[in-house]
Amino acid sequence: MSQTRVQHFTVSLDGFGTGEGQSLDRPFGHADGRLMDWLSETTFGKRIHGEVGGTSGADDTFLATFPIGIGAEIMGRNKFGPQRGPWTDEEWKGWWGDDPVFHTPVFVLTHHPRPTLEMDGGTTFHFIDATPEEALQQATDAAGGLDVRIGGGPSTVRDFLAADLVDRMHLVVVPIILGRGVRLWDGLEGIETRFDIESVTTSSGATHMFFSRR
Amino acid sequence: MSQTRVQHFTVSLDGFGTGEGQSLDRPFGHADGRLMDWLSETTFGKRIHGEVGGTSGADDTFLATFPIGIGAEIMGRNKFGPQRGPWTDEEWKGWWGDDPVFHTPVFVLTHHPRPTLEMDGGTTFHFIDATPEEALQQATDAAGGLDVRIGGGPSTVRDFLAADLVDRMHLVVVPIILGRGVRLWDGLEGIETRFDIESVTTSSGATHMFFSRR
Repeated sequence: MSQTRVQHFTVSLDGFGTGEGQSLDRPFGHADGRLMDWLSETTFGKRIHGEVGGTSGADDTFLATFPIGIGAEIMGRNKFGPQRGPWTDEEWKGWWGDDPVFHTPVFVLTHHPRPTLEMDGGTTFHFIDATPEEALQQATDAAGGLDVRIGGGPSTVRDFLAADLVDRMHLVVVPIILGRGVRLWDGLEGIETRFDIESVTTSSGATHMFFSRR
Repeated sequence: MSQTRVQHFTVSLDGFGTGEGQSLDRPFGHADGRLMDWLSETTFGKRIHGEVGGTSGADDTFLATFPIGIGAEIMGRNKFGPQRGPWTDEEWKGWWGDDPVFHTPVFVLTHHPRPTLEMDGGTTFHFIDATPEEALQQATDAAGGLDVRIGGGPSTVRDFLAADLVDRMHLVVVPIILGRGVRLWDGLEGIETRFDIESVTTSSGATHMFFSRR
């Protein structure tokens, strides 16, 4: 049975999943790389950026599960790029270069669809204007019996949590106070009652929280 | 050298230090006892309520440090009671009965001072209209060389953090989404850079975070 999963989605201690002021040079706005510090030196984290070496340990091991059992991803448009409104050109192909890390179909939620983008390595970006339920149906159909990752950003994760569509969520809380940006938790009062939650803190100072639907 | 310390102050995953709608029957508003679930079954937690028995372990051990080295506390008026504005009577003597858990001088910040209250067991409530700096000076003078606890609620902890008066903070993050209430982190962007932070998660699911001023 295909599951809907959030994987190591990272928030600040004050609950922001990204900073303020996203731009081409600052995908996370004023947060810059701080939400991702816990993974940047890990072996798997370096591999994402085409680098070799890196640390092993709990953070790396948690991160290395990223592709396991995933057949499709759903992401918000602001994870795909900094543009807003109608596309002025279609040159932008995401932050991840010619061979994106996904290697599966990726459904980008946008009110401004554009033609499908076939990338190297098996990643295909589909641009769809859909509700969470509709998007999940399409992604599940494309996932070939594997799981669907809800890839972020915070608004997209929040929408899928609000619609009670998430089976498992691996959340990472890092000890920084961003102060501004996009909050994950708005409107989600009491959702902890839907999940069993296990938490563990690693030596980087990150707290990994595993939410499993009851 | 006397230090200013926050001790096991508890916030929800979305950063609320208390719920909405405080009243005589609901000191934490709609949060009720949920922020304190991690301590309610511990030996020390039960002792606070005059009960015996309870669990041992990391949560209990962390909690048991509550009185160690503390010579005075500063608290906000809303920790002392649910009243707002001028006191309509002075019958209210706090939530803690005749023999409060503090056993030291306690300075209650309020714009409506009232006469000092001498309680059993060494607790004395002083009601003062003062800035954080002024209150800390008075509390330090009263602490006899020991440390000063910033006891909460969230607005009071926030004010002392904003004024950079906190040397050590033991924060507890619990996996609940309160959704509304009083936020701890507002206006505190970037304060993590002032502290070394160590985190550990216990079997109750609480994450204990120890902030030590650099």
